[in-house]
Amino acid sequence: IAACAQKLPLPPCACSALSLLLATRRFCSGGGGGSGSDRIIFRQLFEPKSCTYTYLIGCQATRNAVYIDPVIETAERDANLVKQLGLNLVYAINTHLHADHVTGTGRLKALLPGCRSVISGAYKARADVHIEDGTKIDFGRLQLETRSTPGHTDGCLTYVLHSHAMAFTGDALLIRGCGRTDFQQGSPDRLYESVHSQIFSLPEHYLLYPAHDYTGQSVTTVAEEKKYNSRLTKSKAEFINIMNNLNLPYPKQIDTALPANMICGMQD
Amino acid sequence: IAACAQKLPLPPCACSALSLLLATRRFCSGGGGGSGSDRIIFRQLFEPKSCTYTYLIGCQATRNAVYIDPVIETAERDANLVKQLGLNLVYAINTHLHADHVTGTGRLKALLPGCRSVISGAYKARADVHIEDGTKIDFGRLQLETRSTPGHTDGCLTYVLHSHAMAFTGDALLIRGCGRTDFQQGSPDRLYESVHSQIFSLPEHYLLYPAHDYTGQSVTTVAEEKKYNSRLTKSKAEFINIMNNLNLPYPKQIDTALPANMICGMQD
Repeated sequence: IAACAQKLPLPPCACSALSLLLATRRFCSGGGGGSGSDRIIFRQLFEPKSCTYTYLIGCQATRNAVYIDPVIETAERDANLVKQLGLNLVYAINTHLHADHVTGTGRLKALLPGCRSVISGAYKARADVHIEDGTKIDFGRLQLETRSTPGHTDGCLTYVLHSHAMAFTGDALLIRGCGRTDFQQGSPDRLYESVHSQIFSLPEHYLLYPAHDYTGQSVTTVAEEKKYNSRLTKSKAEFINIMNNLNLPYPKQIDTALPANMICGMQD
Repeated sequence: IAACAQKLPLPPCACSALSLLLATRRFCSGGGGGSGSDRIIFRQLFEPKSCTYTYLIGCQATRNAVYIDPVIETAERDANLVKQLGLNLVYAINTHLHADHVTGTGRLKALLPGCRSVISGAYKARADVHIEDGTKIDFGRLQLETRSTPGHTDGCLTYVLHSHAMAFTGDALLIRGCGRTDFQQGSPDRLYESVHSQIFSLPEHYLLYPAHDYTGQSVTTVAEEKKYNSRLTKSKAEFINIMNNLNLPYPKQIDTALPANMICGMQD
C-alpha cells in the first residue's frame, strides 16, 4: 500500500507513450466547456445492472486521461474507447469502495498497462495510489481536486475539475437524492455535513455528476440540488430522521463486491 | 395538418411567458460549450425500456427550450425538469415516427400548455408543426437546422445545432451502428446516402447524439464514426448486404407504437 501523496506524479510510462499519442488523430468531445489548451474530451458511460455512471476525462492537448468509477463488467468497452480515442489512461479512480458493483480499476490496469488504480487511503484497500482530502490529481493540463465527503462510507471522495466547473460526487450526492448511510460506516450526520460544506459550497453553476442514477437523468447543478434535493434541503435533524428510516433491503452484491473491491476487483 | 414552414415562428404564448421566466433563477448546465449570449442548458435523458435518449436544449439567455424525442413514459419527469429549470418549452420535436416506443410529445403538450409538437411532414401524422429538409427551428437565440436523413424511415430528420457543434441523428446514425432498415419504408441504400451526405459531411469535431444506445454510451463524434462505425465505414454494397441480412425480430411495440405516434401519442 503506497503512502498518501498530496500530488500524484505521472506514471513512468506516460512520457514515452505521450509522444506516440500526440501523433494520433485528435478527437474532440463535449463536456463542461473550457477553451484553448485545457479543452477536455469527456464521456459519461453507463452500466445498467448497477445503474453506475463511469466518467472518462481526457486532456485534449496531451491525450492523458482518467476514468472515474469504472465497472468490471464494462471494462472492455471502456478500454476499447480509450484506444479508439487515442488516449493514454493514466489513472483509474474510485470515488469510494463500492458495495453494489465490482470496480473495473483492476481489469483496466490489465487491459491498459501503465494505468494506475486510485482510491482513498481510508479503506486500507489494495491500489497503486492512495489519496485523501486535498490531493491534486494531475493528468496532462488538467487537475482534479480531491474533497473528502464521508457519510455514505468513511472514505468517500468528491473530485472537482475547477477548470470546467464540474464535480464528480460519487454516492455522496445523487440527482435529487443521496447515497444510503446504513452500512460501511455510514453516517447521515457526516453525510449532511459533507454535502453542505464540500459540495453545496461550490459555485452554483458547477455541474454535478453522480456515481448512479436510477431515473434516467445524467447531470445536475449545485443550484438545482440546493433548491430541489428532496433530502438535503431539509434541516440536519430531518435529514437524519429520513435516512434512519429508509428501511432499504440488504444490498444484493455487497458480500461479493466489498472483498473484491478491497483488491481492485482482481483475484490474485 | 399544418403546411410545412421553412422558418418556425415563436408560439403566441412565448413572449408573455418569457418576461416572467426571465425573472426566475438562471441555472447553467453543460453541453457542447458555446459562450456569451448563445449559452445552452443541455440535458441528455434516458428511457430504459426502449433505451431511448431524450434531449433538452434550452437557451440560457431567453429560457426558451425544446425537447427532442421525448417518450410518453417519462413525459412527467421531463415536464417537471423543465419547470424546475425555469424553462419555457416551445417545441417537442420528433426525429422520426418511432416504432419502438410511443412519443411523449402529446403528453408534454398537455403538461406544458403552449408547447407545440413537431414531426416531418412525410408521415402525414398529426402534429402542430410539420417540417422538412432545410427548416430552421428557432428558440431563443438558438437555431436547429433540419436535415433530411431518410433510410431508417422515409421521414427521418437530423437536427444540427451549429453554434454548439452538435447534431441529433435519431436512428439514422447510432454510436458505432445505425437504425434498422427492414420496415416503415426502410432502405439501406437511402440510409447510406443520408449518413454520408448529411452527417459525415459535418465537421469532424461535431458531437453526434443518437436516439438510442444499447451499450451505455452517450455521445460520439463525426470523426469517430467515420473511422469506427462498424457498418457505415463499409462500401455501399457491403452495407446493403449487411442490412439486408440482419434477421432482426419483428419490433415488439410496433403495432401499438405506430398508430399512437400518428396522433402524437395521444388518444382522442
